[in-house]
Amino acid sequence: MSLRALEGPNSALLAFGQSARTRRNRCLLKRARTGRRRHGRTIRAPTMVKSAKTFRPKAVVPRGLTDASGDQVRALGIMFAAVAEVFEAHGFEPLSTPALEYSDALGKFLPDADRPNEGVFSLQDDDERWMSLRYDLTAPLARYVAQNFDALPKPFRRYQMGPVWRNEKPGPGRTREFLQMDADTVGAGSVAADAEMAMLAADCLEAIGIDRGDYAIKVNNRKLMDGVLARLGLAGGDDEAMARRLTVMRAIDKLDRLGPTGVALLLGPGRKDGSGDFTKGAGLPDEQIATVMDFVGAGGGTRADVRSRLEAVVSGTEAGDEGLAELAEIDTLIGAAGFAEDRIAFDPSVVRGLEYYTGPVLEAELTFTAEDETGAEVRFGSVGGGGRYDGLVKRFRGQEVPATGFSIGVSRLYAALDHLGRLGQARTPGPVVVLVMDNDERPAYQAMARELRAAGIRAEMYMGSSGMRAQMKYADKRGAPAVVIEGGDERGRGEVTIKDLALGAALSAGIEDNREWREGQPAQVNVPRADMVTEVARVLDRHDLKPSGRS
Amino acid sequence: MSLRALEGPNSALLAFGQSARTRRNRCLLKRARTGRRRHGRTIRAPTMVKSAKTFRPKAVVPRGLTDASGDQVRALGIMFAAVAEVFEAHGFEPLSTPALEYSDALGKFLPDADRPNEGVFSLQDDDERWMSLRYDLTAPLARYVAQNFDALPKPFRRYQMGPVWRNEKPGPGRTREFLQMDADTVGAGSVAADAEMAMLAADCLEAIGIDRGDYAIKVNNRKLMDGVLARLGLAGGDDEAMARRLTVMRAIDKLDRLGPTGVALLLGPGRKDGSGDFTKGAGLPDEQIATVMDFVGAGGGTRADVRSRLEAVVSGTEAGDEGLAELAEIDTLIGAAGFAEDRIAFDPSVVRGLEYYTGPVLEAELTFTAEDETGAEVRFGSVGGGGRYDGLVKRFRGQEVPATGFSIGVSRLYAALDHLGRLGQARTPGPVVVLVMDNDERPAYQAMARELRAAGIRAEMYMGSSGMRAQMKYADKRGAPAVVIEGGDERGRGEVTIKDLALGAALSAGIEDNREWREGQPAQVNVPRADMVTEVARVLDRHDLKPSGRS
Repeated sequence: MSLRALEGPNSALLAFGQSARTRRNRCLLKRARTGRRRHGRTIRAPTMVKSAKTFRPKAVVPRGLTDASGDQVRALGIMFAAVAEVFEAHGFEPLSTPALEYSDALGKFLPDADRPNEGVFSLQDDDERWMSLRYDLTAPLARYVAQNFDALPKPFRRYQMGPVWRNEKPGPGRTREFLQMDADTVGAGSVAADAEMAMLAADCLEAIGIDRGDYAIKVNNRKLMDGVLARLGLAGGDDEAMARRLTVMRAIDKLDRLGPTGVALLLGPGRKDGSGDFTKGAGLPDEQIATVMDFVGAGGGTRADVRSRLEAVVSGTEAGDEGLAELAEIDTLIGAAGFAEDRIAFDPSVVRGLEYYTGPVLEAELTFTAEDETGAEVRFGSVGGGGRYDGLVKRFRGQEVPATGFSIGVSRLYAALDHLGRLGQARTPGPVVVLVMDNDERPAYQAMARELRAAGIRAEMYMGSSGMRAQMKYADKRGAPAVVIEGGDERGRGEVTIKDLALGAALSAGIEDNREWREGQPAQVNVPRADMVTEVARVLDRHDLKPSGRS
Repeated sequence: MSLRALEGPNSALLAFGQSARTRRNRCLLKRARTGRRRHGRTIRAPTMVKSAKTFRPKAVVPRGLTDASGDQVRALGIMFAAVAEVFEAHGFEPLSTPALEYSDALGKFLPDADRPNEGVFSLQDDDERWMSLRYDLTAPLARYVAQNFDALPKPFRRYQMGPVWRNEKPGPGRTREFLQMDADTVGAGSVAADAEMAMLAADCLEAIGIDRGDYAIKVNNRKLMDGVLARLGLAGGDDEAMARRLTVMRAIDKLDRLGPTGVALLLGPGRKDGSGDFTKGAGLPDEQIATVMDFVGAGGGTRADVRSRLEAVVSGTEAGDEGLAELAEIDTLIGAAGFAEDRIAFDPSVVRGLEYYTGPVLEAELTFTAEDETGAEVRFGSVGGGGRYDGLVKRFRGQEVPATGFSIGVSRLYAALDHLGRLGQARTPGPVVVLVMDNDERPAYQAMARELRAAGIRAEMYMGSSGMRAQMKYADKRGAPAVVIEGGDERGRGEVTIKDLALGAALSAGIEDNREWREGQPAQVNVPRADMVTEVARVLDRHDLKPSGRS
């Protein structure tokens, strides 16, 4: 059934103060499609329910979704701008794709199923085609490249920033809409493009405000893992090898959570967890388990150290030798650019996405820890990842198009920066509020706000209709650094009163509590009307506040 | 049926080079949920189809949706930043709400229907609740205000920018995802808040680059229309009056298209259009038609002129007198702030959204015309609108919360700015490309790109694996202002070659074609390696190119 098959009554009626209506009115209304909204688009006016008195929707943001406001939005904008600047400097071009893609183009559609796969939000268009909200920025890139292949420069280097959506069970810190910042180079098979991604990731984190030493870009390579699997005799294509291969990778993926002992059990006979549940193991013999554990534990020290440890494990296998050569080349490239181990390390325990990537894989981790409200240690962990992938464009065009990219997840990074106190530049003072002491004087008050703005000071006239007390409460709630007051007395004297609210905030925060300083800083002054802007600027200056949120 | 009810096979298998599989493998795979992608989120790897060879999805952006790239994305960012700066200066706070809202919260859900209304994109969540993509930024604001009412300062002043989605038939210049920039003041009943919106709209258009004289903010008032309807005896609540009222408003809404004569016919006996189709009229007697036409035609001249013409039509009716008083107050406020008729005019022919708004209504129009490719005149028309509305928050809380706001539609404004040549500041030169003459020298080439970037110059090393000719073509396609070449000969002499590509572009564009200038501007120079950055900067400078897209 098409969505268009259903029609609701138009709200024009209700807007004209009516709520009861007859069947005949409905018919009239169906023809009365005059409902329009702002900005030049015809649209049905919001559909009202039969009786506005009996049905009242609950005002709640959908499950697993969130609002962001004020400094949060500003901070995100600053992060985006900083990363965009790095991407632009490296020659990447911005791209923006729509939120919706055809489900089959996203690779989320099975031709033998009548609905898209789980994990994505999907809906059916009028023409019965399924569309899905993008679940990452890579799949739309693949579609875009395949659609515009001949017109694009090769390699095609683009960055994209924006929300993605996942139809998952929401949980703490796990929302169903979240922001990503991606850069990809499509059509470049050279490992230099992968090395660039690792350096780009480091540059981005530093540009955002993560200090060197507080993060690590960890590099692994799918081919090294293939080398290990070949060494275990699991490289072949028969069903059993395939299943065991997956069991091995899943075991390695649990290193963080279970530690080496737990992983070794999962590689061998299996493991019983705390609740007594038994997980079947890969059934590898002990010497093979040792090989895998040698591989996984080959990280630490210089990149040369890691390479030589890895050589002992995988050299001699075709895939392993290729992986080692690629690591060596990356080492040369990033070393020449001055990236030492404190920024980019080799770490074979990075297995996330290894079944998806085809060559180098990277993960960006924050290495410092913090304490939560309860004093428990908090690790921010992975804030981004990427690597080389060849299959995506092939899905559309048949031919393989090598590509490599990197994606930064914004939420954890935001949380980490917030913890580090690095979001301060987003903290915009509230507007200076010109109080309305007399409704008839609004033109004069409004002129004051305009004068302040013209001087680069964020300002507004109070727009409500409450009294002095409520207006002061409003100014306080808005974080106004000052209010301007012109009552009848002041007007008679040609003066305005300027009340320093930032001072009150500073005092109550105990920042400035010595008596001498306090006496030198009057909380309120009367100045001639002509000096209003100068005096307000002085107040802002006194508290080291930028005059405006933007300039 | 829940989306989660369906499970597809995991792609891990295909990623390991397998495409055929048995039913048993599928079972194994269902347990093998190791699929992960970038940025620290577990997700199913993209689901592959049964045989990648037989099924190949078409790479196409969905119907009615578009991609934006390069300078387009940059220009949008600049527009957003300019408008955000104006909103911030006026004391509005940014807000970001999710793309999805519960359908009933959007006012798009009928409790007696089992699917949301048409016009929006909707999908059903796991828990059977319907969600819809927001169709504007006002409905989410109402939900946000109702949800956080007690915590918010009153009035609540927020701005929001972002995409909205409409499930409509796409057409030329009519996409199903488009961008809006909104500012609203919620909880302010004073007409000063409406006057502010009109001034804000004018300030925003000028900040974006629309000159004074090229736009008009037109103000009308729903109460004036109510006054006219009262004068016609159509103010009452009986069914017939209601239907005729709607017919009258629909007729007025066609003024642009049909002109006064056509509208008068629709107000009276009815009208036969070019194809012979007859539209039934409102059946008003001639003197009533004259009243309506006097009202609609009351625009033009000073705001005082318009007010006195309107007074003749609607004064004496309760609604009309209220409307006149509000117009007078707006006139005083915007006049005191120095906004003359060349920026904000009163125009009773603005009826868009009148059935939705409850007081002052505004529309922003671009007044200049342009020619399209065929020489036909193009009017950009309305680029924004707004007004006072009281019903939205009431839907949730029962109590009326007065609100007023303004929304700028980005697409037409973008088209207009493009036409005016005002998007030039977004035109970022391509990156300087360091060519790869010798794969083994990549570390050295990469260092050159890094040096250039450190000097604020957008630069990249060529990441593909093609030869000189393809690399030059690539640089050209990227709009590179210059390439840096270090072959074996240059390296031997300690030099690099810098090729000025912007010169070639200037020459072929006929910008600089006199011989003397040409001879003074070598297209290619050899300089010592140490002078590379200086020389590249000189090339950029010669063509008045900013060194970087961002700084």
